[in-house]
Amino acid sequence: MIAIISNKTTEERILEIVHFIEKHDVQAHVSRGVDRTVVGIIGKATPVLAEQIRQLSGVEQVVKISKSYKLASRDFHPDSTVIKIKDVEIGGDQLVIMGGPCAVESPEQIDEIARLVKASGAQVLRGGAFKPRTGPYSFQGVGVEGLVMMAEAGKKHGVLTITEVMTPEYVDVCAEYADILQVGTRNMQNFDLLRKLGTIQTPVLLKRGFSSTYDEFLNAAEYILAGGNPNVMLCERGIRTFESYTRNTLDLAAIPVLQSLSHLPVISDPSHGTGRRELVEPMSKASVAAGANGLIVEMHTDPDNSMTGDGVQSLFPDQFARLMQDLEKLAPLCGKRFDTPKQPL
Amino acid sequence: MIAIISNKTTEERILEIVHFIEKHDVQAHVSRGVDRTVVGIIGKATPVLAEQIRQLSGVEQVVKISKSYKLASRDFHPDSTVIKIKDVEIGGDQLVIMGGPCAVESPEQIDEIARLVKASGAQVLRGGAFKPRTGPYSFQGVGVEGLVMMAEAGKKHGVLTITEVMTPEYVDVCAEYADILQVGTRNMQNFDLLRKLGTIQTPVLLKRGFSSTYDEFLNAAEYILAGGNPNVMLCERGIRTFESYTRNTLDLAAIPVLQSLSHLPVISDPSHGTGRRELVEPMSKASVAAGANGLIVEMHTDPDNSMTGDGVQSLFPDQFARLMQDLEKLAPLCGKRFDTPKQPL
Amino acid sequence: MIAIISNKTTEERILEIVHFIEKHDVQAHVSRGVDRTVVGIIGKATPVLAEQIRQLSGVEQVVKISKSYKLASRDFHPDSTVIKIKDVEIGGDQLVIMGGPCAVESPEQIDEIARLVKASGAQVLRGGAFKPRTGPYSFQGVGVEGLVMMAEAGKKHGVLTITEVMTPEYVDVCAEYADILQVGTRNMQNFDLLRKLGTIQTPVLLKRGFSSTYDEFLNAAEYILAGGNPNVMLCERGIRTFESYTRNTLDLAAIPVLQSLSHLPVISDPSHGTGRRELVEPMSKASVAAGANGLIVEMHTDPDNSMTGDGVQSLFPDQFARLMQDLEKLAPLCGKRFDTPKQPL
Amino acid sequence: MIAIISNKTTEERILEIVHFIEKHDVQAHVSRGVDRTVVGIIGKATPVLAEQIRQLSGVEQVVKISKSYKLASRDFHPDSTVIKIKDVEIGGDQLVIMGGPCAVESPEQIDEIARLVKASGAQVLRGGAFKPRTGPYSFQGVGVEGLVMMAEAGKKHGVLTITEVMTPEYVDVCAEYADILQVGTRNMQNFDLLRKLGTIQTPVLLKRGFSSTYDEFLNAAEYILAGGNPNVMLCERGIRTFESYTRNTLDLAAIPVLQSLSHLPVISDPSHGTGRRELVEPMSKASVAAGANGLIVEMHTDPDNSMTGDGVQSLFPDQFARLMQDLEKLAPLCGKRFDTPKQPL
Repeated sequence: MIAIISNKTTEERILEIVHFIEKHDVQAHVSRGVDRTVVGIIGKATPVLAEQIRQLSGVEQVVKISKSYKLASRDFHPDSTVIKIKDVEIGGDQLVIMGGPCAVESPEQIDEIARLVKASGAQVLRGGAFKPRTGPYSFQGVGVEGLVMMAEAGKKHGVLTITEVMTPEYVDVCAEYADILQVGTRNMQNFDLLRKLGTIQTPVLLKRGFSSTYDEFLNAAEYILAGGNPNVMLCERGIRTFESYTRNTLDLAAIPVLQSLSHLPVISDPSHGTGRRELVEPMSKASVAAGANGLIVEMHTDPDNSMTGDGVQSLFPDQFARLMQDLEKLAPLCGKRFDTPKQPL
Repeated sequence: MIAIISNKTTEERILEIVHFIEKHDVQAHVSRGVDRTVVGIIGKATPVLAEQIRQLSGVEQVVKISKSYKLASRDFHPDSTVIKIKDVEIGGDQLVIMGGPCAVESPEQIDEIARLVKASGAQVLRGGAFKPRTGPYSFQGVGVEGLVMMAEAGKKHGVLTITEVMTPEYVDVCAEYADILQVGTRNMQNFDLLRKLGTIQTPVLLKRGFSSTYDEFLNAAEYILAGGNPNVMLCERGIRTFESYTRNTLDLAAIPVLQSLSHLPVISDPSHGTGRRELVEPMSKASVAAGANGLIVEMHTDPDNSMTGDGVQSLFPDQFARLMQDLEKLAPLCGKRFDTPKQPL
Repeated sequence: MIAIISNKTTEERILEIVHFIEKHDVQAHVSRGVDRTVVGIIGKATPVLAEQIRQLSGVEQVVKISKSYKLASRDFHPDSTVIKIKDVEIGGDQLVIMGGPCAVESPEQIDEIARLVKASGAQVLRGGAFKPRTGPYSFQGVGVEGLVMMAEAGKKHGVLTITEVMTPEYVDVCAEYADILQVGTRNMQNFDLLRKLGTIQTPVLLKRGFSSTYDEFLNAAEYILAGGNPNVMLCERGIRTFESYTRNTLDLAAIPVLQSLSHLPVISDPSHGTGRRELVEPMSKASVAAGANGLIVEMHTDPDNSMTGDGVQSLFPDQFARLMQDLEKLAPLCGKRFDTPKQPL
Repeated sequence: MIAIISNKTTEERILEIVHFIEKHDVQAHVSRGVDRTVVGIIGKATPVLAEQIRQLSGVEQVVKISKSYKLASRDFHPDSTVIKIKDVEIGGDQLVIMGGPCAVESPEQIDEIARLVKASGAQVLRGGAFKPRTGPYSFQGVGVEGLVMMAEAGKKHGVLTITEVMTPEYVDVCAEYADILQVGTRNMQNFDLLRKLGTIQTPVLLKRGFSSTYDEFLNAAEYILAGGNPNVMLCERGIRTFESYTRNTLDLAAIPVLQSLSHLPVISDPSHGTGRRELVEPMSKASVAAGANGLIVEMHTDPDNSMTGDGVQSLFPDQFARLMQDLEKLAPLCGKRFDTPKQPL
């Protein structure tokens, strides 16, 4: 249920309305827009309460929301969420690019890649210290020391960092070192992990489960939001279909769909979404044309020898740099800007 | 198997090579490129024959092709196929837009829509006279008279026409009236229809089966090519997945994949690919950014009352015109031009 | 819409009711059960007409049917359809097994396999004279002469025959030689073929499209029924999923689901449904346990050298015979009998 | 890599072979069969080591295993694993049925259902204390006290208990109260949970991820086995496909496939696999006919008022009891016995 309040209502009156609502065993979430303020009401709201709220002075309308997710819904929060991290804004008119290797391998590797990411104009360095692997005998990541290497590389070269967290007990240490925490596709419905992420304020990039519907995806985001962390980004990373030529089928319609159902930023992952280097460039451009708020792209200085064996989908540094230049031109036609300084590699 | 012939070889010598090959119970298909000429060899080519061909003067290399499709393969035909129909070229640097209603309903309807298509800058009028419908009690199209209405509207307003053909016996009459014939997604493996289309020269737009792999899709095209009709376009129109919010999942990676595996033009259908009007614009742009040679887009003057009930995915004329203007700006960033004259509706 | 008539109503009165209905521009289909007679009404039935029918003496109730298929629906036809062909009844308490090679290859091959089919206790010989193949260069079947070979083998050994028909123009010749016509998975929505099959009375085994929903499947059957041919069997033959270890995923829940939604017999195809010989026996048994009315199973005397290359899913004759013996014991526990004479091979 | 040792080799010699192998930085897992002993070798086995092992007296053959999972593979462990819990054996010739509600709701509810499970002849009581729910506002289970209620009901009525564990930190408490721990479909690739389950000896029922391949499934089992817990059962519970009439598509071919690839017991879940009560009985029988070692079936005394809203797929007690009687007759035809005492409810 949401209560819509006209923009002529004073701040004081809005607070009175909120207090009234909260006396009735439900929660109120206020979202201020330019034209109106929306108060989202979560909990068992009776028809009687709905009628009482509707009659409060300042309330224009009370609307029932039938979606199972509330805080993630654009109905509850009509304006797009913009997540600010230092000088980067995700979800606004800036296109945000996260680039880097599948896994952090060594201080030298991650330092050099951080330098290339920055020089190419991307704002965020990606890299995994903990790797979710299909089998127990594959390389599982370098662990906590990878977090340290990455944090140092990010600081030195002036880029934000994003890394994957796989289990509740590692959330705190990951949040200490990284600017953004990533939840992988296999953990989208690891509900204890989501609950733990709801207790901190570090921004979270939540990847869509590879066979999850939009509805399940937004409900997973709702777990984090409901815990108290409003800084959630959604990431389309490809779904599993019958087609096996590509590793996954990148569902680009998810971008406008999620942006209409939700106010959260939507990032696209053309690397995992296709699993093939030669498709990363066209699918990156297509993602931006479809309205993505950002991209997360694998880049490696020596893809053939990457420790995860995922090099086949990693761009070479010069390909990454060229893509960034192309996106600078494309972004303005798609209502975005990507005007970070770019330097020769 | 293909034989690669250097560009210094004379035309006469190439013919001699071809004659030599054809004496051995196999077919030879010559594809002339700027740097080299490729002779595709179809049939049971023995290792002995391969060696004999390799030793012919002028032949640089003989390469075995393991794909099950041959004529559709870029290995056989390295240069992109460009299909010329009057002043429109599909598969080259021109972006080609096909717009119009799901079904031809009346002379007035199709005339007015043809006018709008032309004024918006699109080059081709789409419209179905025969409609493949899930159930027998749904509107099945107006039939042959729809072909006539559409041909007149196309001629009057100076746009090409494309219409669907569902069965071998109607191929000739459809080809008499329309400039391009469309094979629908349910008929992609209607092999008798494909064989019949191989016997004419009218260009064919072959839609991908909604659960067909790239390999099956190119093998279906191979049926038409093997019959003798080289004028085939491939159309990605969305695949069936677990996600039901959209009618299909538009697989945009198919565009660069098919363009790398094959020399045939690739068209995208964002209308059927999403089944939702509000997604047509972003997915049209994403298709062009992914490298599509063209789009086929549903547009209707009165979508709410369309006879097929598919109006929910049809653009209104003003939306269609605005999209065309946007594509004019986007195309040059994607290596295409879409500079047809555009007029106020 | 259906009108339910009590079993005390005389035959004469039922006819009067039918005549009344048919005067109103709708069709009436009568289905006589033990407890009641159901008159299915197809066409635009107005509320006024519904009320008029409800008031007719003998009519107990008028019920609106919201499904898009009517004649295929169990609502329209509460008793299970039993299709009688010579001494075989499909859809009743008899388990019916169709066995044989993927393709008819020679008179000797099909004669020997017909003998084995009969000796094993199966009632129907399967075999393809026309083969739908993914690519144009694969073996496409021996054509009409295969029909002749198969008809002779069937007659000689006393088994019915089933063969695939791929295009409307071959329906008549196939029906001349075979007892049952099969529509393949790729042709489930070849609507012109379905329409043509509606004009004859030969029983049709309609295979589910490999990505078709139950609803689309029953609508395809409706095309044949609506044309006037009531002798339709449904065949579950596996659907396309992400799992590629098996050729398809045999959806056994389809058996009870289709039997509840429809009155038509349901046959299972464990050969195409799995694509692996070692899975045919367990999935055959599972199909019968799930309630299948019959099975269609590939068996070949020399699977490794089958002309279609599909031998990998064909049983050897001794495996087939053993399976028939096992099914004889299993059938009675599943409400069926499979007591045909069985002889040593 | 595996070393095959003839059955004439003495126990002492086998130990010498194992000691030799373990000196080379690899692990040896011994699996004794009637005809031969197989020593599985995990770790980087060089060709030199392979040759050295092959030459040891008593070793018949050394075979390279290319699968990514080892301990879960039947190559490594040719005899089927039988897991003994008190007087129940899972994986042998006994059919094992696990029945009970989706969620433990109250001591009275679970006590009554335990009584019905026992009286019907099933051996294991299922019930969830922790529930993985798509959205954060749904009933999440009664928690640890549910474990206590269930343990008491199981003890009182003489049935084993199985319950789901969702996160590593709850493994120990769940193992304290339940006889079998279940990993849900969404957690199949929650690798930290799998690793934790590898450190205990309590049997684990691992559900297949709803979009996981057989290979990924067996690799997930490998995580538990590699940790040191050999007591793993695999559970097919339906996969996600395009068909939405059923909640999932129960992939019964998975049963014989997994039994051929692996030595672990395979259980089928027809309740989640279909999501519809009326399909549980036919799919239970089909599962047993396909060779399942057991079933896990939802049963509830008041399904319409179940706290999870999953009642739509729960059997009523009398349906459950009737199914058990039917399975008693069916089991012997499928190489199993299900001869537990059965009493009137």
